[in-house]
Amino acid sequence: MSLSTPATSLRQRAIKAALGTIPFDCLLRNARVIDMVTGEIRDADVGLTGSMIASVHPCGKFTQTENVDDLAGALLSPGLIDTHVHIESSHLPPERYAEIVVAQGTTTVFWDPHELANVLGVEGVRYAVESSRGLPLRVICAAPSSVPSTPDLEMSGADFAGQEMETMLSWPEVAGVAEVMDMHGVLNGSERMLEILDAGLRSGKLIEGHARGLKGAELQAYLAAGVTSDHELTSAEDALDKLRAGLTLQIRGSHPYLLADIVAALNSLPHLSSQITLCTDDVPPDHLIEKGGLIALIKLLVSHGLRAEDALRMATLNAALRMQRADLGLVAAGRTADLIIFDSLETLNPLRVYVAGECVSHNGKLLFSPKAASGVVPPRDTMRLSPQVTSDFQLRIPGLKNGKARLRNIKGARFTQWSEVTVDVRDGIVQIPAGFSLIWVKHRHGRHDATPRMALLEGWGELRGAIATSYSHDSHNLVVLGRDPADMMLAANQLIASGGGMALSQNGTLLANVAMPIAGMLSDLPAENLAEQFKNLRELSAEIADWEPPYRVFKAIEGTCLACNAGPHLTDLGLTDGELREIVDPILEIWEDDA
Amino acid sequence: MSLSTPATSLRQRAIKAALGTIPFDCLLRNARVIDMVTGEIRDADVGLTGSMIASVHPCGKFTQTENVDDLAGALLSPGLIDTHVHIESSHLPPERYAEIVVAQGTTTVFWDPHELANVLGVEGVRYAVESSRGLPLRVICAAPSSVPSTPDLEMSGADFAGQEMETMLSWPEVAGVAEVMDMHGVLNGSERMLEILDAGLRSGKLIEGHARGLKGAELQAYLAAGVTSDHELTSAEDALDKLRAGLTLQIRGSHPYLLADIVAALNSLPHLSSQITLCTDDVPPDHLIEKGGLIALIKLLVSHGLRAEDALRMATLNAALRMQRADLGLVAAGRTADLIIFDSLETLNPLRVYVAGECVSHNGKLLFSPKAASGVVPPRDTMRLSPQVTSDFQLRIPGLKNGKARLRNIKGARFTQWSEVTVDVRDGIVQIPAGFSLIWVKHRHGRHDATPRMALLEGWGELRGAIATSYSHDSHNLVVLGRDPADMMLAANQLIASGGGMALSQNGTLLANVAMPIAGMLSDLPAENLAEQFKNLRELSAEIADWEPPYRVFKAIEGTCLACNAGPHLTDLGLTDGELREIVDPILEIWEDDA
Repeated sequence: MSLSTPATSLRQRAIKAALGTIPFDCLLRNARVIDMVTGEIRDADVGLTGSMIASVHPCGKFTQTENVDDLAGALLSPGLIDTHVHIESSHLPPERYAEIVVAQGTTTVFWDPHELANVLGVEGVRYAVESSRGLPLRVICAAPSSVPSTPDLEMSGADFAGQEMETMLSWPEVAGVAEVMDMHGVLNGSERMLEILDAGLRSGKLIEGHARGLKGAELQAYLAAGVTSDHELTSAEDALDKLRAGLTLQIRGSHPYLLADIVAALNSLPHLSSQITLCTDDVPPDHLIEKGGLIALIKLLVSHGLRAEDALRMATLNAALRMQRADLGLVAAGRTADLIIFDSLETLNPLRVYVAGECVSHNGKLLFSPKAASGVVPPRDTMRLSPQVTSDFQLRIPGLKNGKARLRNIKGARFTQWSEVTVDVRDGIVQIPAGFSLIWVKHRHGRHDATPRMALLEGWGELRGAIATSYSHDSHNLVVLGRDPADMMLAANQLIASGGGMALSQNGTLLANVAMPIAGMLSDLPAENLAEQFKNLRELSAEIADWEPPYRVFKAIEGTCLACNAGPHLTDLGLTDGELREIVDPILEIWEDDA
Repeated sequence: MSLSTPATSLRQRAIKAALGTIPFDCLLRNARVIDMVTGEIRDADVGLTGSMIASVHPCGKFTQTENVDDLAGALLSPGLIDTHVHIESSHLPPERYAEIVVAQGTTTVFWDPHELANVLGVEGVRYAVESSRGLPLRVICAAPSSVPSTPDLEMSGADFAGQEMETMLSWPEVAGVAEVMDMHGVLNGSERMLEILDAGLRSGKLIEGHARGLKGAELQAYLAAGVTSDHELTSAEDALDKLRAGLTLQIRGSHPYLLADIVAALNSLPHLSSQITLCTDDVPPDHLIEKGGLIALIKLLVSHGLRAEDALRMATLNAALRMQRADLGLVAAGRTADLIIFDSLETLNPLRVYVAGECVSHNGKLLFSPKAASGVVPPRDTMRLSPQVTSDFQLRIPGLKNGKARLRNIKGARFTQWSEVTVDVRDGIVQIPAGFSLIWVKHRHGRHDATPRMALLEGWGELRGAIATSYSHDSHNLVVLGRDPADMMLAANQLIASGGGMALSQNGTLLANVAMPIAGMLSDLPAENLAEQFKNLRELSAEIADWEPPYRVFKAIEGTCLACNAGPHLTDLGLTDGELREIVDPILEIWEDDA
């Protein structure tokens, strides 16, 4: 499919069709149009010409048309626009991701290929752009700004500064600077963030935010730098603060417990602003299929008391305004015919979806499997590591053979804290204390010698086996959690062999393995199969770690490596302190046993 | 003043000031900020750094600043943005126009220099761009699309098609295609309009509308062509139709009798859309000074029951969204410090105005007279005509010396109709019948031989003298109305001598004359003097024509020449029919007297 701007010749045809002198290509009859401008629901017929809406007119006014779709009073909405997503979190390449979300009504996404970029650099973003061509999903790319997210504390597969940003922003497919995660760099004037913001401001394109936890003076300073949106909302108060500060909100579904409060707060304002959009950010494949992406968020918002018309406006017209796309977001002549036919405002089931004037989906199923863009070779073999041996997973204290050591350790998971513990060392190996586990991170991008880093982990209990992943925000090094070196080695080597993915091992056996050979993060499988494998892996993770619900295990792993956040984290460079922005020596004190 | 985008170094200073580590350049204390996003009014201090807002924070939080402006609880609004104006209608060059409107709170205008373009072509637009530099008013230009407005029925000073449009759109100061007036050309696929729209669509810039009288299929077709806004509203129903069709409204003040109905209609909608902006279009100099420009419209809307916060949002944030200017429209960190301090929402008097961080106005008076941009030579000597003689103003029927003729004539003024009348011809000259007057148009741009065109005018009564103008939308040829050839000649020759303007004559005497030597449409006088002269001329026009109120005389002259509208009009090419799009022979029948 071609999702490019309508040519003048197409517009000439649309003008004639609107005037009634030639037939429409398709006439959607007896629609109830959800008018995102006025908030009304209006009866109308909608005539399409090629990829465009040519006319919205009274029911029955025109009959000349090549094809008819009788909506019989069903609702007609513009296609949904997701203003911030990392497609990588679905572990699907764009064509398979499109197959799922388009059937749910999402017709445009603003993809921040931050994860691909952290593995592959500018080439990863180029892959995102090129692999998105010809799909029934309008993919607009953002230029990742945080590669790595926390310079000096971690290494990913590339380093972006001004020049890389300029290169990416020069591409027409790239609409802006992706979420600016290095808040510390912005507020402290790091040379790299200066260059990146400068390139963004000079391009005139969007500058997307990641204002996690920012408030007061820091929030104001972050806006002063030129950032204009945020999706990292932590409470209704935080959402209102950011709305009032002038940021465009990108409310996301990944933190559903916040939504009731956010809806109540928005409903209490004198005016429901156009500066509120919706996004999915990170959705794993099984959730994407079972619960849905943007549509699930819309339903949640409605269930919490937001008018359905208002929720849909956030995901359509408001998003188009944010994206400065006057061709999207409305059921109106002259705009692109990206449309959803919904059964009702109560149930919001997408009966049919049109993309660029073509009906591509019936009852939640795409009518065809989108093909991968021709000529694009997915990037494989990105696990630049040789097989590991058991001793690679033994924590040692340099120079200490037998004795005790007092070590700094990581406590907690998603919100980590510093703690310390005294351990026994036997034959040079730290004996993991009762109630503790080990986290192990190894650089996998071939950019340094890749000494494995290890730290003791408190609050995860005693892991019964190992969990390994090559998908660990943001640097996507190889991360293994466990207690038993043999199990940890087994899971790690499985990922090295399969080009990346996620694996579980226990008692010398591989419990589960999801291969993600593209960039160590995307699967080759059809979405349904991947989702099944992924769900199985996630459920089996409960055999190893006591987390409820089990899907939090993987969120927790990410939390434990996200060096850009406050608290201690383990990266490929060592144990980091998010406040001090330093790498910290874990050894506080050692006592050698008396000989 | 420099109104360009803030440099990175400025943003770095703003970040530091927001964080409290260096002083603000100016701190606006104890403001009540009108929050255009939430509709709230919030207490805050606002710190400025250079041209930017660096921080909006709780009152008293910071004290470090170079300068203080204590608002003592006055309201703080973003500067007003006029989304469609022809500055030429004020007959002031931009620096003098700025002096008036900035003091009223207008800090940004989207200028369609359509009138200059019709006299001077691309050079006229270049003059608009260059004469707007360095002013305390942010002037964004549009590229006139309708030069002339009605090709083949009139000639102006230039002909624009695709190439001229491309040239203008390539300039960074030009943000879009100006109001597309040739609706007929758009709907019928004229080659010229195809090229112009194509250039606009390819540029990715705005395409502004003029959808006068369009509804139903024609309105839909006009949108299908790519036009996205309209200011030519003729009723509340028309406004709602266009809002629902998906056009961004530009509600204008020049038709105040519509506003009560429009406000009632907008207030009845479930949602008050961001797709509603405000504009002034054409405001004569005395009205601009006495009543005001955009601020007068806002007050009118409020008087009709629109919430003041909503009216102000239309003129600020909504306009910034329309203009795709994320740097304008909000009192928020990171945006440009274009600000108004209002006394109250009830009276909306601008106590002070800040432009790009600098206080430029106190109590409705600018603190300095903006200078004309240096190095810009205003275009003069554009009346390419030699002095006329009395016989030039005598209507003749070719080949008829004495007898009668049945002639087509123009009936009415602003909305003209066809009529016919039988006249006596004596010595080759048509004797103007009782109750009729004469309209005379002569090409003044030196592009053809300039045979004067004449037609009989019904419904104006018997003019007692002559009214002449070189400012007659849209081609700005020399237009004279009257009955007496000597008076008509006197007024015409005065304009030819003074390089253009407006003049009244009666009984061989010049009653009034306003010289507009720049392009035949702009005055050299200070605004107050021009307004006084202009008001005097307008009031004296009541001596010549029986129109109440007298200012309608000049609107009526424009209406009589606007060949793009329906009905008969006289242009430099002859008598035109707006429906048939043809030039029409006025002679229906002749009878020679028996010899």
